[in-house]
Amino acid sequence: MAVEKTMDKIVALCKNRGFVFPGSDIYGGLANSWDYGPLGVEFKNNVKKAWWKKFVQESHYNVGLDSAILMNSEVWAASGHIGGFSDPLMDCKECKARFRADKIVEDHMTENGAEVASADGWTNEELKEYIEKNNIVCPKCGKMNYTDIRKFNLMFKTFQGVTEDAKSEIYLRPETAQGIFVNFKAVQRSSRKKVPFGIAQIGKSFRNEITPGNFTFRTREFEQMELEFFCKPGTDLEWHKYWKEYCWNFLLNLNVKSENLRMRDHGEEELSFYSNATSDIEYLFPFGWGELWGIADRTDYDLTKHQEHSGQDLNYLDQTTNEKYIPYVIEPSLGADRVTLAFLVEAYDEEELEGGDSRTVLHFHPALAPFKAAILPLSKKLSENALDVYSELSKKFNIDFDETGSIGKRYRRQDEIGTPYCITIDFDTLEDGCVTVRDRDTMEQERIKISELESYIGKSLEF
Amino acid sequence: MAVEKTMDKIVALCKNRGFVFPGSDIYGGLANSWDYGPLGVEFKNNVKKAWWKKFVQESHYNVGLDSAILMNSEVWAASGHIGGFSDPLMDCKECKARFRADKIVEDHMTENGAEVASADGWTNEELKEYIEKNNIVCPKCGKMNYTDIRKFNLMFKTFQGVTEDAKSEIYLRPETAQGIFVNFKAVQRSSRKKVPFGIAQIGKSFRNEITPGNFTFRTREFEQMELEFFCKPGTDLEWHKYWKEYCWNFLLNLNVKSENLRMRDHGEEELSFYSNATSDIEYLFPFGWGELWGIADRTDYDLTKHQEHSGQDLNYLDQTTNEKYIPYVIEPSLGADRVTLAFLVEAYDEEELEGGDSRTVLHFHPALAPFKAAILPLSKKLSENALDVYSELSKKFNIDFDETGSIGKRYRRQDEIGTPYCITIDFDTLEDGCVTVRDRDTMEQERIKISELESYIGKSLEF
Repeated sequence: MAVEKTMDKIVALCKNRGFVFPGSDIYGGLANSWDYGPLGVEFKNNVKKAWWKKFVQESHYNVGLDSAILMNSEVWAASGHIGGFSDPLMDCKECKARFRADKIVEDHMTENGAEVASADGWTNEELKEYIEKNNIVCPKCGKMNYTDIRKFNLMFKTFQGVTEDAKSEIYLRPETAQGIFVNFKAVQRSSRKKVPFGIAQIGKSFRNEITPGNFTFRTREFEQMELEFFCKPGTDLEWHKYWKEYCWNFLLNLNVKSENLRMRDHGEEELSFYSNATSDIEYLFPFGWGELWGIADRTDYDLTKHQEHSGQDLNYLDQTTNEKYIPYVIEPSLGADRVTLAFLVEAYDEEELEGGDSRTVLHFHPALAPFKAAILPLSKKLSENALDVYSELSKKFNIDFDETGSIGKRYRRQDEIGTPYCITIDFDTLEDGCVTVRDRDTMEQERIKISELESYIGKSLEF
Repeated sequence: MAVEKTMDKIVALCKNRGFVFPGSDIYGGLANSWDYGPLGVEFKNNVKKAWWKKFVQESHYNVGLDSAILMNSEVWAASGHIGGFSDPLMDCKECKARFRADKIVEDHMTENGAEVASADGWTNEELKEYIEKNNIVCPKCGKMNYTDIRKFNLMFKTFQGVTEDAKSEIYLRPETAQGIFVNFKAVQRSSRKKVPFGIAQIGKSFRNEITPGNFTFRTREFEQMELEFFCKPGTDLEWHKYWKEYCWNFLLNLNVKSENLRMRDHGEEELSFYSNATSDIEYLFPFGWGELWGIADRTDYDLTKHQEHSGQDLNYLDQTTNEKYIPYVIEPSLGADRVTLAFLVEAYDEEELEGGDSRTVLHFHPALAPFKAAILPLSKKLSENALDVYSELSKKFNIDFDETGSIGKRYRRQDEIGTPYCITIDFDTLEDGCVTVRDRDTMEQERIKISELESYIGKSLEF
C-alpha cells in the first residue's frame, strides 16, 4: 500500500528532527521564513556541494563565482528589474483582502480544466478583462468589487550610507544571474576561458512575494544555483538541449524517480520575446507540480542590455576566427531550497516491518544524507572504543554518535534522518577489529573491518 | 631579502587572476563591495569548509545551523541592536565632511603613541570632550567647527509586504549570532544535545558602515563564521580558554605563522558590562594589525534578553542533577572574508630563482588552494591522455588543465594561484603510466603512478 506523503508529515519531521524550523519562532515567526537546523544545514550543504561538483568541478566548461548581494542600482535599471519586475496587485473593496490578479486568473483557469494555466506576461488590462468576463468573485468574501490592478515591484529596497534618499537607494538582488552578467568580461579575461564556457553561482536572492507559501518552496529569502552558459550564436539550441539533459540526469543520479519529474517546454506564446527556448523541470510535490529548474535560452539579451547601459564593450573576440560577437546564453536556474525540498519529499517513506513494526525512513542518496553513518556502541562499556572509531571517521565524513536506548530504537532514529549506515560496536569488535554495518535501505547487516570503513563509506558517496 | 607585501600587489593579483573583482565594476562599482571570482570562490569556500570541518564535523560538541538573514524585528529589539547598534557621527560645518567621532579620537590616540587606542563604549559627551580638549581639527579642511555628535544605526532597513510603514519594517541581520540564540531551544531539543554544546553558523551579515575599506577587510556585506558555545555557569572561563586555543591552532594548522598573529585579551575597562572575558586574535596585515576573531565570554546575557523579551522559557534542564539554568555562552566569532584575506596575505611571496628568474607564489595550505593540481600535457598530441587524467581526478578534486605556453610559463601561472602540484603528462606516460609531479614550494619533481595520484593529493589535504 502506497504511503501518503503529506506536507504536514514532512514539516513535522523537519521540525522534530532539526531539518527545518520556522524562522524567528520564539517571536511568532516572520511570514513563511525558515531556518535550517543541524540536519537541514548538512543536507542542504550536501545538495549545494553535489551541484557544484557536477556543474563546476567536473565540468571542463564551467567556472564559479560568488558576487555580492548588494549591487549598484544601475544593474537593475539595465536588467529591467526596476521597470518591470512586479506583480499585478488588486484589492477587494468590500473585505480589503489583497490578491495577485494573475494568481486569481490562473486559479480560475486550473479550476476550469485548462491544460496550461498561465497568465505570465499579461497586461493589467488583459487580466482585468478576464476577471470581469468570467465573473471571478473575491476568493475571500465572494463579492465582485475590486480596485484597479497596479504594479508592485518585488525587489526589497534599502539605503546605503547615512541618508535615506533616492541616491542612496539600493536593492537586495532578486536573482544571482545579473552578478554573473556584469562579471562576464572580468571572468573571461582572468580565467582565459574560450566560448563556449559557463559561470556558475550559488547564493541568496530576495523577492518581496505577496503570497509566499508551501513550506520552503516559495519564500521571500531563498537560495539559487544558477549557471550562465555562454555560447556562439546559432549553437544555442544545441546547448539548450545539452543542459536540459545534464540537469535532468543530475536529479536522476541523486535518486529522484523519473515518474515524479516532468520536462515542460514552453510554447511560443509563453516565451519571453528574447528567448529562443525555455523548459522547466517540474517535480510532483504533495501540493502538486512545482518548478525546480528553469532552463532558458536567453540569446544575447542580457549582455546586450548591459553593454548598452554601461557603455562597456561586452563582445567576445574569437581569436581563432577573429569574429567578434555578443555570446548567446543558456541559463539553467535552480532553486536550492526547492530542490532540497524535492529530495526530502522523494526520500520520505513509511514502511511496514516484519512483526507488525513500522518505520519512517528517508532514502537519501548517501551523498546527500546529513550523516553518512552513525556509531552505535552496544554497551556503555564500549563507549571509548566507539568514540575512537567516531573520531577517526569524523575526519572524513559527518558522523553521528548515539549510545542511548535500545539498538532497535537507535536504528529507527537513524532511519528517520536518512543515515545510510549504522555501525555497531560490540564486544567482538575488541577481538577482531570488525564492526557490524547495517544498511538503511535493505536493513541487511554485514561484518566489516574498521580499517575498511572509510573506503566503504567513501564508495557509496559517488554519483 | 624580505619581499614587501603591499595591498596594491595583493589587490592587483586578485583582480588579474580572478580571486576578487571590484563589485558592480562595469557600472563604476559600489562603495567597497567585492565579488569573488573563479579562484576566489573556490578559495573562500575552502576556508569555510575548513572551519566547518574543525568546528562542526570533527567536534563532538558542536552542531550546525543556517538561519535566515531576514528575521522578526523583535529579535533586534531584544538584542539591543535597534536601540544601541550605532556609530557616533559628526559633520564638519565648514567643508561638510562626515566622520565617525570615535575614529577621529582613536586616530589621535594612535598618533600620540597610545598602546590601546580604543574609544569603544564612550558616550557622545566623552567623545566631544576629548576632541575639544585635544583640539582635534577636521582631517579634511583643518578647521575646528563640528556639528553635535549623533547616533547613526548601522542596520540596513527594508520593508516586507506591500506597504512601507513601521509595521512592515525589517532589517538585514547585522550578525549571525542572534539566529543561533533564538533557535537555542529548538536545536537543543531536536538534536538532544546536552550542555556543554555549541551551535555553529556560516552566513552573510550586513552593516551600514560609514567608512568601509582596506579591500575585503571591512565591507558592508560580509560573511561570518560564528560559534555560540553553551556551558554551565562557572565553567565559562575554562571554556573561554579552550576555544581561544582551539581557534589559535586552527590558524597555525593552516600555515599562518605565529609571528603574524597576536592574542589580545581585553582589559577590564574595555569589556562589555556583561562579559567575563574577551580576547581578539589579530593578524598583521600590510595595513597593520586587524581583528580576525573575537572570542567573548558573554555569560547569560543574550539568552536572558531573549527570554525576557519573548516570554519563552530558555532555561536548560540538566537531567542528571535536575538543575535548571540559563547557560553561559562563549562566542568565537570569525570574519570569513577577513580570514580569507589573511590566508592570502600570509601565502603571498616573491622569490628569486636560479638563473636570475623570479616568481610570485602563493604558499597556500593544499586544503585551501583553489586548484589542488594542474594537468599539463607536454605536447598537444598528449591532450587526450591528459584529459583522461583530468577527468578522473576532477571527480575528487578541483583540478586545472593548461596546455598553452612553455612548461616554465605554466609553472609560473600555477605558482601565482597557489596550486600545490603540477602534473606533467609526457610521452613516457603512455609507456609507463607515470606522470611527473612538481611540488609548488620545493619545486622538486618526482615520478608517480597515475593510479596513485588520488591518494597522493588526498593525503596533502589533511590538517
